[in-house]
Amino acid sequence: MGLDAWLTLLQAAQQVSTRFWLDALKRCGSAEALVAEAPRLLAQHDVGAEALARLASPDAATIERWRAWLSRPDRSLITFGSRDYPARLAELRDAPLALWVEGRERALLASPQLAIVGSRSPTTDGSRTAEEFARYLSQRGLTITSGLATGIDGASHRGAVTMLGGTVAVLGGGLDVIFPRVHAALAAEIAAHGLLVSEYAPGVAPQKLFFPQRNRIIAGLSLGTLVVEATRRSGSLITARFAMDYGREVFAIPGSIHNPLARGCHHLIRQGAKLVEEAADILIELAPLLRDEGITLASVASAPATADEAPLTSDPSYQNLLKVLGFSPTPIADLSARANLTTAEVSSMLLLLELEGLVEALPGGRYSRLGKKN
Amino acid sequence: MGLDAWLTLLQAAQQVSTRFWLDALKRCGSAEALVAEAPRLLAQHDVGAEALARLASPDAATIERWRAWLSRPDRSLITFGSRDYPARLAELRDAPLALWVEGRERALLASPQLAIVGSRSPTTDGSRTAEEFARYLSQRGLTITSGLATGIDGASHRGAVTMLGGTVAVLGGGLDVIFPRVHAALAAEIAAHGLLVSEYAPGVAPQKLFFPQRNRIIAGLSLGTLVVEATRRSGSLITARFAMDYGREVFAIPGSIHNPLARGCHHLIRQGAKLVEEAADILIELAPLLRDEGITLASVASAPATADEAPLTSDPSYQNLLKVLGFSPTPIADLSARANLTTAEVSSMLLLLELEGLVEALPGGRYSRLGKKN
Repeated sequence: MGLDAWLTLLQAAQQVSTRFWLDALKRCGSAEALVAEAPRLLAQHDVGAEALARLASPDAATIERWRAWLSRPDRSLITFGSRDYPARLAELRDAPLALWVEGRERALLASPQLAIVGSRSPTTDGSRTAEEFARYLSQRGLTITSGLATGIDGASHRGAVTMLGGTVAVLGGGLDVIFPRVHAALAAEIAAHGLLVSEYAPGVAPQKLFFPQRNRIIAGLSLGTLVVEATRRSGSLITARFAMDYGREVFAIPGSIHNPLARGCHHLIRQGAKLVEEAADILIELAPLLRDEGITLASVASAPATADEAPLTSDPSYQNLLKVLGFSPTPIADLSARANLTTAEVSSMLLLLELEGLVEALPGGRYSRLGKKN
Repeated sequence: MGLDAWLTLLQAAQQVSTRFWLDALKRCGSAEALVAEAPRLLAQHDVGAEALARLASPDAATIERWRAWLSRPDRSLITFGSRDYPARLAELRDAPLALWVEGRERALLASPQLAIVGSRSPTTDGSRTAEEFARYLSQRGLTITSGLATGIDGASHRGAVTMLGGTVAVLGGGLDVIFPRVHAALAAEIAAHGLLVSEYAPGVAPQKLFFPQRNRIIAGLSLGTLVVEATRRSGSLITARFAMDYGREVFAIPGSIHNPLARGCHHLIRQGAKLVEEAADILIELAPLLRDEGITLASVASAPATADEAPLTSDPSYQNLLKVLGFSPTPIADLSARANLTTAEVSSMLLLLELEGLVEALPGGRYSRLGKKN
């Protein structure tokens, strides 16, 4: 299946941008053809000399190590253009050439995913919110994708790991080097129930500078990205930025203006991210997207409306006003007579009902009921 | 100055909508002409009989009481169409026919105003925020307009009452009936330093049903409305709704998703209200509006940028990258050479700088610096 050519390509590719190799791969059609064409292609490329040398004489020890790593049945290399390469990720102009994966649930890569990311040092509330949102959404069939960092990432994985939708962790280094170490047990649990994913080959140590690039994969795999708590400098804003660039949904949870961990979320909301108060808000937003793609979640159709205080319609006087109003345009004077209220009372009540989206003000001072938004 | 005609008109006007009288007043040109024309106008109007009777034989006792109330030099009646009637309020299709005012600072009605409104039962944080925002903005020359209610309204008045911009309280009843009673001392302080305003004549008891109508005046007097804390059922959402309808700015302060008093604000933000973290955000948003109207606040020009965590530019490696980047488009490879960093390092750093709005990604993988905002 061209594994030879792919491993040769990957051990040479590290010195030149992913984008270059991706474009070349698309042009050439296969890793084999690309390896054959490489001398000609790299001749026009500034930093191609080293890559060219490594294509001509591949590092046999590295390739041997990779083959050994891949020999376990729960591990594989998923290459760009192959059937298993996730379609949403393939859309990226800087899609990774290949993904190293480990875990029981390779199918999760193709499942509808929501990224949940945020601060490495969240508040207790923030952690709990991440875990609760992840559990709720995973129970309903969304896969929760994150970066295995401490804080929000870890809480999100934990909330989803044994649920219906499961969880995917995208690492910023080789899968044989779990970082942070404190998440070794969580990573093992994710491997057992979900999937560990990396663009970086086994043996590559995680580097701070890899993390922003890793974040594009988290955003790229997902229908949308939810940021739970983040300072203005948080790496999760990079994930959100990628999601925006890729035309995916961005969700952010607001917080107190005195909480520095809300500032990143507020920044995103000002840039157009959807303000989210409850996990159900996300299902409601994603529902049309999922329908367009023919994806049926466990219970998107029955997603509850957002809970709220008792509606106006629980008040008998408002109930009566709505009853006498009906769905055809009616002047206030008529309503006042029908409901036995003064016009001042009726107009105040209509104002509140309009605010709740239950009635519509029409030209000429007339009103009519609106259909209830599910 | 037509006071006779105005008092006659006002004692008759209470049974028919403000909008009717306002349209009639605009057509007739003056209160005198309107009183003369009224029999003909009201003949076509459903509920005109009682109003007509009161125009024909005005309630002398009421008018006498009003005259007595108006005899104090710190009180007046400001009628639609007069020089003192606030221009912004006159724009409303349902502008009040007249305002009863009491206080030392009648000029405040024409000053640039910001409405600050919110819950009657806010959190301690919410009250403090309202008071601090009001103080900060009033110190810089904005007048703070609110509804004298307990909670956010009261805190806003208190923050502004002795400051440069001062404060205006709009009541939902006659100015001789201060409601709530617990704010009697605050109302006296506002009368001494600022202005009390009502559409309702002296002697009219405040009514719950007047408050939504009163809210249109708060919104109508103001360049914008800030909602500090509010449930989804709060009357302050009505004020915000009016502000939106009148094409004024709406600002809302976010809060924890576990705080029911943030839900109204979040609802507004989802409807397009500007998310505000600091009082300075409001000055920054209003600055172009104020400039367009030729209004110079004490220090809009020197409004501080929003405070935030230490900027990336305080980091020497980022400083150096910005230095070698400059304002003309430069390829990453050149930057990598100039800054003595790998292309991977440079591209991660550029990503963060782009996120901060300090550099711009250009076609062909080139970058350039952006001018610092304001």
